Amino acid sequence: MPLPFNARRIAVVAPHPDDEILGCGGTMARAAAAGAEVHVVVVTRGQPPLFEEELVGWIRAETLRAHDIIGVADTQFLDFPAAGLDQIRRSDLNQALSSALSRIEPDLLLIPFIGDIHLDHQIVFNAALVYARPRGSGGPGCVLAYETLSETNWLAPGVTPAFIPNMFVDISETLERKVAAFQAFQSQVKPQPDERSVEAIRALATLRGATAYRYAAEAFVLVRQIY
Amino acid sequence: MPLPFNARRIAVVAPHPDDEILGCGGTMARAAAAGAEVHVVVVTRGQPPLFEEELVGWIRAETLRAHDIIGVADTQFLDFPAAGLDQIRRSDLNQALSSALSRIEPDLLLIPFIGDIHLDHQIVFNAALVYARPRGSGGPGCVLAYETLSETNWLAPGVTPAFIPNMFVDISETLERKVAAFQAFQSQVKPQPDERSVEAIRALATLRGATAYRYAAEAFVLVRQIY
Amino acid sequence: MPLPFNARRIAVVAPHPDDEILGCGGTMARAAAAGAEVHVVVVTRGQPPLFEEELVGWIRAETLRAHDIIGVADTQFLDFPAAGLDQIRRSDLNQALSSALSRIEPDLLLIPFIGDIHLDHQIVFNAALVYARPRGSGGPGCVLAYETLSETNWLAPGVTPAFIPNMFVDISETLERKVAAFQAFQSQVKPQPDERSVEAIRALATLRGATAYRYAAEAFVLVRQIY
Amino acid sequence: MPLPFNARRIAVVAPHPDDEILGCGGTMARAAAAGAEVHVVVVTRGQPPLFEEELVGWIRAETLRAHDIIGVADTQFLDFPAAGLDQIRRSDLNQALSSALSRIEPDLLLIPFIGDIHLDHQIVFNAALVYARPRGSGGPGCVLAYETLSETNWLAPGVTPAFIPNMFVDISETLERKVAAFQAFQSQVKPQPDERSVEAIRALATLRGATAYRYAAEAFVLVRQIY
Amino acid sequence: MPLPFNARRIAVVAPHPDDEILGCGGTMARAAAAGAEVHVVVVTRGQPPLFEEELVGWIRAETLRAHDIIGVADTQFLDFPAAGLDQIRRSDLNQALSSALSRIEPDLLLIPFIGDIHLDHQIVFNAALVYARPRGSGGPGCVLAYETLSETNWLAPGVTPAFIPNMFVDISETLERKVAAFQAFQSQVKPQPDERSVEAIRALATLRGATAYRYAAEAFVLVRQIY
Amino acid sequence: MPLPFNARRIAVVAPHPDDEILGCGGTMARAAAAGAEVHVVVVTRGQPPLFEEELVGWIRAETLRAHDIIGVADTQFLDFPAAGLDQIRRSDLNQALSSALSRIEPDLLLIPFIGDIHLDHQIVFNAALVYARPRGSGGPGCVLAYETLSETNWLAPGVTPAFIPNMFVDISETLERKVAAFQAFQSQVKPQPDERSVEAIRALATLRGATAYRYAAEAFVLVRQIY
Repeated sequence: MPLPFNARRIAVVAPHPDDEILGCGGTMARAAAAGAEVHVVVVTRGQPPLFEEELVGWIRAETLRAHDIIGVADTQFLDFPAAGLDQIRRSDLNQALSSALSRIEPDLLLIPFIGDIHLDHQIVFNAALVYARPRGSGGPGCVLAYETLSETNWLAPGVTPAFIPNMFVDISETLERKVAAFQAFQSQVKPQPDERSVEAIRALATLRGATAYRYAAEAFVLVRQIY
Repeated sequence: MPLPFNARRIAVVAPHPDDEILGCGGTMARAAAAGAEVHVVVVTRGQPPLFEEELVGWIRAETLRAHDIIGVADTQFLDFPAAGLDQIRRSDLNQALSSALSRIEPDLLLIPFIGDIHLDHQIVFNAALVYARPRGSGGPGCVLAYETLSETNWLAPGVTPAFIPNMFVDISETLERKVAAFQAFQSQVKPQPDERSVEAIRALATLRGATAYRYAAEAFVLVRQIY
Repeated sequence: MPLPFNARRIAVVAPHPDDEILGCGGTMARAAAAGAEVHVVVVTRGQPPLFEEELVGWIRAETLRAHDIIGVADTQFLDFPAAGLDQIRRSDLNQALSSALSRIEPDLLLIPFIGDIHLDHQIVFNAALVYARPRGSGGPGCVLAYETLSETNWLAPGVTPAFIPNMFVDISETLERKVAAFQAFQSQVKPQPDERSVEAIRALATLRGATAYRYAAEAFVLVRQIY
Repeated sequence: MPLPFNARRIAVVAPHPDDEILGCGGTMARAAAAGAEVHVVVVTRGQPPLFEEELVGWIRAETLRAHDIIGVADTQFLDFPAAGLDQIRRSDLNQALSSALSRIEPDLLLIPFIGDIHLDHQIVFNAALVYARPRGSGGPGCVLAYETLSETNWLAPGVTPAFIPNMFVDISETLERKVAAFQAFQSQVKPQPDERSVEAIRALATLRGATAYRYAAEAFVLVRQIY
Repeated sequence: MPLPFNARRIAVVAPHPDDEILGCGGTMARAAAAGAEVHVVVVTRGQPPLFEEELVGWIRAETLRAHDIIGVADTQFLDFPAAGLDQIRRSDLNQALSSALSRIEPDLLLIPFIGDIHLDHQIVFNAALVYARPRGSGGPGCVLAYETLSETNWLAPGVTPAFIPNMFVDISETLERKVAAFQAFQSQVKPQPDERSVEAIRALATLRGATAYRYAAEAFVLVRQIY
Repeated sequence: MPLPFNARRIAVVAPHPDDEILGCGGTMARAAAAGAEVHVVVVTRGQPPLFEEELVGWIRAETLRAHDIIGVADTQFLDFPAAGLDQIRRSDLNQALSSALSRIEPDLLLIPFIGDIHLDHQIVFNAALVYARPRGSGGPGCVLAYETLSETNWLAPGVTPAFIPNMFVDISETLERKVAAFQAFQSQVKPQPDERSVEAIRALATLRGATAYRYAAEAFVLVRQIY
């Protein structure tokens, strides 16, 4: 199996743990299996009083277990306050995220979508693109935005930016690993018909796959690709 | 189960047989079960040399069987040439379609999507809206565009009009009838991972459902609704 | 006169008092007359030094008078600072608004438009949609964005989100009540040719009506409807 | 009163007679009063069997009367079949329209909108822009698309191109002349609440005006302006 | 120099000769130099009376000379009438184009943009995408739309589809070959400030390059990419 | 040379010094040469620790030198923190900017584009439009957004607002002055292939010019124009 995107170093930016699995867990697993170095940067951490300390500890452990299943090489936690990025000086966030990504030097960068309902996602999208500006010959040659069930369909697509994918990655061989990684987040898995159910994850993979004549796929919006 | 949309008379316009099942078979079945009169207008008919006469005969029979499964009250066939609407004088098409729809006097009108790759779909979308102009106090109070697997995702969504649904109809209780109706079109059902596979139909229903916290749904783009 | 939208419990979110009247006063009045329970949540309150205390008191009284004319069942004031929502922790706003709306349990939710020039409107749009996420079988089955004269046309429609209505509610019988309710805000009514003039309100109602072959209408952008 | 747009030679392209009055009758009247030479090119002519010969004759006379009221300097009739432009070889239409416009050498070109429901409007929009290509230093410095009541709001704005105006022309002093010119088309004036009623025309003028703090205005979408 | 896109077989569809050079001459030259097989399908041929027979003969020769400069492996001429695709039965065009492309079996397909002012370009865009439907595991893994000076900027971008590129191909080393190939079309090269001037071609390359931190680039809109 | 736009008083809002030169230096120079009064409002000032005090001093001097080259009549510095507008109470910014612009009373207002990657640009776009609301008969008759190399192409055009120009100003005679003014910012000029290189500036001018059949042009998105 060849490396998807020919990418050797991949960085995935997750506003909150599990976004990266929902959005591109199968792609990460496929890339890792093919020899790419897959890095994740988790931007926020739940903090009291919005989130209980104990729960946050569990989620951290679940995250690492999920990343282990996927084959993530390294995970950085930036520990900004979850559901609180609007309170952060944007230049501080930009600097912290750019610094984390510079350590990775990815040739493929995967980020959440600006049309997601969670303000943290919108802010992270912008911050990640500040890092990705082609202001030198380095920098990621490809930037893709991923879709996140329970976020991407619930703002006002069509009024706010709609996720209209143009890039499809075959995950037929890694869908099960994606599902397993998501299930590592025990507190986050919901029963059908929730968008965060295993059934919804499988349905999305089947649908995105069918559009590209594949058994399962993850779909992305291309932000910029340079050859 | 209340009537969806409170509609008592529903007209579905299908460029080709089976579009109406893929697009809104579950909604039709639900409405029919709830007492609404569901009508279908099939705009085209395959014609030699593009289509073999025998195949066309079969498809006609399959269509009626599918409509029987759904509970369609009446089906009109306009018999314009399939894959040939671009050759038809548009005023003739408008007139024929308006005439057929006027006989129905629907309060809910379901039409294909203008962003579909098939030119017949694009043309039918326009022709149906000519009928639906609010030039009097009658006319359909609600016009919805449906999505058609193997058509809607394959033009260039985002460059050409993208199907971004804002209307969701719960079809949890009629999904099986939709699948059965589609399977009546023996020549049209494809094995996975084709978009015209039963698996893709189920996946789409599950995904559209999950977005609305339902087990299964059909999704639509609202063109116009008047209360 | 049947209930518009079949809605029995309606919640209207107003960033500032009078937005709800400009946006959907006629619809509220029609729904109330038909037996629906109409609730309003006013998100902000003018505060010194931006607004004089005395003026704010008057506006509060005018608001209640206007709501009385319309037939509003109940009005909640959240008292966040007007023209200051950008200074509020977003999670606080989300929580307060969700809490207010949860008390109402609306089946129809009416919100301002994200493309309005006032940042408060943009923020309220997002906050209201956080509440409306279909994360359970409850929640509003229909979410509509309304247009506000002096707000919706003055950002940069087409560059920023444009208000392109697809839902029209006949207010022929309640337009006068809408005008009367707006005139209750003595300090807010401007002479023609201001967008906040009675003439502009009537012109908008006539135009939106004509598009739907009605004498007067209010128009909305559908965010999401679930049947 | 200065010349609007500084234009000295104005060409208005009308798919059918009265489109130009609905779309920009007030602007034409203002420009003519200020000394500009206003030309109209009427692209189609009703033809049997779609249109009765006698009616067509009347409309021709009404057109000239309307143009007289407005102060139109010259009217060219291209006599392509109304509701039949889809049957015309596009290169023939392009050539005929370019030839007519070349005789005028306008510095301001006003055309119908591509999102109008009438296919003739869509086709004329494209044909007029072929003429307007900046392939030399001549050509119109400004191209604007106008809105036509009963056409522009009735396709599927938002799915198909939406008329989102950014150019407003004060017609406070010429609105009455516009209304009078429209009333010259006796067969085309409809009673309220039709979009082709005088009330709808006035409401649109008041609304477009209010958006620009004027008593009455016509609104346009700028296609291209060169200084 | 690695193969751009890893593509080994590339098909470029040109409505008229020289579109393919303006749109992606540098990319073709780079790919050819790197060992890819580059094919061109020219859809139309000028025909009397719109075009003089002699001129058409010259252009055919110029085309082959240009393709020789670029390193095109093979050129197919479909000989549909230039500026006359609207007169062609669409199913005939689809069939002819699909047949030509099937002989090539490209993994990368380059097509004109649907927002170009020339109707031939719009029609070819649609026809090429009919071929590219992912209805099997073969088919092009990547479909890109190219921009054509004198076509892409002159419809009504923003009202009609705008060319907003997201894919950039470095042509620093092949820009000169592109310019030379374009100059092979002696009748088509115009002096500055025409969009078809060498200066405009260089400016576009420099600008698209700068956006991607390259000395020269061609830019594309991604229609669909499958990995 | 006539006054472009007939504007006699022009205000240009620059989030940071040099944005105004990149975006509309040539237009300002042409207007100034033709007798218009050109004013610039620079919204931010670099502040420690993000920016070194000494560098900021230099840039202030460079700004004034650049404005001198262009022929700017007057420059106001609002001194909000650069890269820190998200930390400013929006009502304070609105008030300060409105106050500065009210002193100018421009009939033409030039502002940065909301789709620029720098959050300061996005915020300034909104703040400037608050000032420009047509809430009286004064106010700027024309509002244009300009493009800024190194900002406008680097968010996610097409997902975020894309700069699709419809207004072109011939700067053939003032391009050299624009380049000279930009070179006054010694610290900001970068070598090719950076977007902030002189080569990129010239390429953009040539391309925008060619689209309008001019040797050089600056392009704008029209926000609103009132005649």
